[in-house]
Amino acid sequence: MVWAPRHESVFVRLFGGHERSIEMAKDRWGYHQVVVPDIEPESLYVYRFSDSREFPDPASRFQPEGVHGPSQIVNLGAFQWTDSEWKAPTLQETIFYEVHVGTYSQEGTLDRLGHDLPELAALGVTTIELMPVAQFPGSRNWGYDGVYPFAVQNSYGGPLALQRFVNSAHAHGLAVALDVVYNHIGPEGNYLSQYGPYFTQKYRTPWGPALNFDGSQSDPVRRFFIENALYWFKNFHIDVLRLDAIHGIFDFGALHFLAELEREVEVAAKQLRRNLCLVAESDLNDARVLLPPEKGGYGLPAQWSDDFHHSLHTLLTGERDGYYVDFGTLNQLATVLRDGWFYQGHYSEFRHRRHGNSPRGISASHHVVCSQNHDQIGNRALGERLSSLVGFEAQKLAAGMTLLSPFVPLLFMGEEYAETSPFQYFTSHGDLELVEAVRRGRRDEFSEFGWKDAIPDPHEETTFTKSVLHHNLRDTEPHRTMLAFYYQLMAFRRANRLGAEAEWEVTEIDSLNTLTVLRRAPRPCLLMIFNFSPGEVAVPGAIPEGDWTEELNSAGALSTEDAFPRSVSPEDTLNLPGHSFVVFKREEGD
Amino acid sequence: MVWAPRHESVFVRLFGGHERSIEMAKDRWGYHQVVVPDIEPESLYVYRFSDSREFPDPASRFQPEGVHGPSQIVNLGAFQWTDSEWKAPTLQETIFYEVHVGTYSQEGTLDRLGHDLPELAALGVTTIELMPVAQFPGSRNWGYDGVYPFAVQNSYGGPLALQRFVNSAHAHGLAVALDVVYNHIGPEGNYLSQYGPYFTQKYRTPWGPALNFDGSQSDPVRRFFIENALYWFKNFHIDVLRLDAIHGIFDFGALHFLAELEREVEVAAKQLRRNLCLVAESDLNDARVLLPPEKGGYGLPAQWSDDFHHSLHTLLTGERDGYYVDFGTLNQLATVLRDGWFYQGHYSEFRHRRHGNSPRGISASHHVVCSQNHDQIGNRALGERLSSLVGFEAQKLAAGMTLLSPFVPLLFMGEEYAETSPFQYFTSHGDLELVEAVRRGRRDEFSEFGWKDAIPDPHEETTFTKSVLHHNLRDTEPHRTMLAFYYQLMAFRRANRLGAEAEWEVTEIDSLNTLTVLRRAPRPCLLMIFNFSPGEVAVPGAIPEGDWTEELNSAGALSTEDAFPRSVSPEDTLNLPGHSFVVFKREEGD
Repeated sequence: MVWAPRHESVFVRLFGGHERSIEMAKDRWGYHQVVVPDIEPESLYVYRFSDSREFPDPASRFQPEGVHGPSQIVNLGAFQWTDSEWKAPTLQETIFYEVHVGTYSQEGTLDRLGHDLPELAALGVTTIELMPVAQFPGSRNWGYDGVYPFAVQNSYGGPLALQRFVNSAHAHGLAVALDVVYNHIGPEGNYLSQYGPYFTQKYRTPWGPALNFDGSQSDPVRRFFIENALYWFKNFHIDVLRLDAIHGIFDFGALHFLAELEREVEVAAKQLRRNLCLVAESDLNDARVLLPPEKGGYGLPAQWSDDFHHSLHTLLTGERDGYYVDFGTLNQLATVLRDGWFYQGHYSEFRHRRHGNSPRGISASHHVVCSQNHDQIGNRALGERLSSLVGFEAQKLAAGMTLLSPFVPLLFMGEEYAETSPFQYFTSHGDLELVEAVRRGRRDEFSEFGWKDAIPDPHEETTFTKSVLHHNLRDTEPHRTMLAFYYQLMAFRRANRLGAEAEWEVTEIDSLNTLTVLRRAPRPCLLMIFNFSPGEVAVPGAIPEGDWTEELNSAGALSTEDAFPRSVSPEDTLNLPGHSFVVFKREEGD
Repeated sequence: MVWAPRHESVFVRLFGGHERSIEMAKDRWGYHQVVVPDIEPESLYVYRFSDSREFPDPASRFQPEGVHGPSQIVNLGAFQWTDSEWKAPTLQETIFYEVHVGTYSQEGTLDRLGHDLPELAALGVTTIELMPVAQFPGSRNWGYDGVYPFAVQNSYGGPLALQRFVNSAHAHGLAVALDVVYNHIGPEGNYLSQYGPYFTQKYRTPWGPALNFDGSQSDPVRRFFIENALYWFKNFHIDVLRLDAIHGIFDFGALHFLAELEREVEVAAKQLRRNLCLVAESDLNDARVLLPPEKGGYGLPAQWSDDFHHSLHTLLTGERDGYYVDFGTLNQLATVLRDGWFYQGHYSEFRHRRHGNSPRGISASHHVVCSQNHDQIGNRALGERLSSLVGFEAQKLAAGMTLLSPFVPLLFMGEEYAETSPFQYFTSHGDLELVEAVRRGRRDEFSEFGWKDAIPDPHEETTFTKSVLHHNLRDTEPHRTMLAFYYQLMAFRRANRLGAEAEWEVTEIDSLNTLTVLRRAPRPCLLMIFNFSPGEVAVPGAIPEGDWTEELNSAGALSTEDAFPRSVSPEDTLNLPGHSFVVFKREEGD
């Protein structure tokens, strides 16, 4: 079946055993379909128009020869799932671990990633979040140039490899999130316009023509993407979809696409009796995304909080370039910790306009936070991780702020052992004009910062290979220590249910560049003190009433028994080393 | 003061007595300002950039020589207002009377319109709604090509004439609504882009570049239009602003322009202690426009319901062209009468997509309805009024349906006496390429209906003059009778508080093409039966329990005493002539 309202007649042309073309029947909505009973498994096929032009299936499940080649029939129903007992964690329990399949390992496949599932489960993360796997041109791409939203990248192993991966993840107690792109279609191998009005001229995205979510014949376009979401949940047992850059989904209609998508996912979750979850990436700071429909919202369970990242990153690095111009004081991080994001109608220097509205009343588990992710690393000129920008203690402080927050933390692969390789912007388009345009665009983007000549060439294979993880670092210092620290933080988060709905009081001590967080509920009562100064500070009277025992100390010996527990009293002055934090627990009286 | 962020230096060049150029001081937001103490009243001026180019003031109050000429200083504070006791009607009390100043009379001025205020007050309408008066090119234009949002059209009499008009209207007990255009700026004489980023490339409207409501430097653009709204309320004592085509206001930000505008107007209303009201024209069928902020809405008091017009118009005319393809059965009108609009997520053949969401729970006074308005008449190829399309009785039926509805009725000038002149699409651009483009556009729009050669030329002066009202028709039949009928309907509406929040039950009798409306509350209890068949129908048992007296009968002798009152009982079969309606009142027991 294919939606091709512009064509009176469409044929499916089957290759293999006996090649043939079969005309399909068109219905009033422009869908053409036919049932071919005697089809050979794994047949290749294309759609053929009456003018003899042929294109792959827009809803192809597999493109074994890449974006320009024929589509392949795949029997997704054949896989033997063994996860009937699986229950995905709630957002309050979740820690995401973001992975780019291609650079996670030398092999760059889903099967290879699958080998590490036991290790990842032991680390304490709950959910592997895959960067987009929809078929893109070539074999090196972040995934946001995908052009077949239903196909799993051939070089990653194709659709059956994804089924194996998810089943295995579930067996290891890990959920799987998948990044999907509903705001544009990549520039190479994009034949959608040959079929129908997938795009609109009314709006423009920074990445190409906007998808038609509210214009004439938009219903089948919306359906295409809603079916895509359900497809991953149903056929691949994906637990969470991360919706890329929803600020590029232009829909002025009376039922926003995301509200409809959420509604459909909720229906599917009930039918399947599973936790299915949508998480948006949004640059809007608009509570509407998260508010329930009765408050005029789309009702999405969660979205990324870039404000958290930016306020933390600038405190640690002192950077003020680009979008960091809006950040750099303790107040921004404190506001994020209280409310979920910073910009609530404030004027943004970077945007040259007021930005955002208030997220008050939206609980912490609606916000996904990180100190590093693919964008924040890879959108730098050189793609440096935090490990290349700040010292070891500051990295630990970043980890502590993220993993001890009431929000939903996300780690970027390798962060947990302070991986040193960069994560750079790489592509492998076949269209040479496009290659040059991307190369030039990348250079121009950073030219104002004087970076021009140093910018890695996205098309160069070494830009990709440099970005591959070095897993063996784990066994060397200081990476081993960092890894142990992440283990400890995640164990502490779990033991103290830090993701649960909490009463949470944030105080800035501006003069000391220090932040205290007091969690009053749920019990145990916790006091966390974060020092963002590079040097030691003496915090007088930071401890509220009660008997407090030190539970975590980023600067302390982590496994020496005699270092723990340490008791402190309200009158004590605390000496915190530079870029360190400490966590106390209050002993509960009778 | 002028906002010109792109210019380091801007001069104000004053003509008159002693011509001079004065450089203004620029602030960080890009506003340039200077105080010139010894300025002569009514001085002409332009703004001059450092490259010597000169343009009129974007916020000009008066363009005495038209859109390309200099701006003129106007002292709006000098007018002696005499309306301190004025109190505008609520929407529940309101009947709008839409006027195009240029074609209302041969003179085409506000002063001439002002002469008729006693007559209009006597008619029973409460609010004169002026089509846009913002300065447009030439002297013949509907007003939607305005390019100086703060200036009052010179050929209408300029700003002081508008002050006189409103003051006089208030003295006669009439409120004034003004149509304002915040979705685009007309194509000729539009120099806004010379000053700053008023427009965005992100979105496109059907009428030209979209205004920049959510991009970089959008705050001053939003402020420009918010100040415009407040300007009319404060300096001209306007009571209601009708916001043209809000579906062309593209704002994806976290605080929609309209929500901010409404908030600012509410603040001003409190300060001024006046009823100030915004009414949107919306093609979105989106309850968000009307819902309060706590339900995620913009909180606007009312919007136009095109669905009401279309369902009524198609029942009377049988037309199915263009957007009428979606209408034509009783069910649509009944749904509108129950809910406010028809499309609540239904598939629209005209739009080739689903359209709208549910307006349930939004009371009737949020919807402005009409059987004719400037668009529904003027957007026809030949601009025919209903008086040229359907018979006399059907016109009365349309009037009854509109004026007896629980919504806020709107009449289009001349409708009340069945004016015969058309209201055609006319312009008087000076730019000859534009003249040709508009001419061609108009022809192309109707070419599919086979109208091409008959389309009046918008630029031809006779297209305008043909559209001028013939007031003397009022004294001839059948216009005199129609006028008396409108008087009677409005008096009945007022006496029975038909605009008040009501319990309202609608029943379709499809087989008879008849609709009954039972108003249970507030008292008196009313039963209205509308026959949309061209022929007589016998409605058996249409009367609920109780003693009912006929109050209105569109087919009856209107002033003959012996025709009233007529009593009917539940067992009576009612014979209704074609295209007629009847209204009964229930005698209340003790």
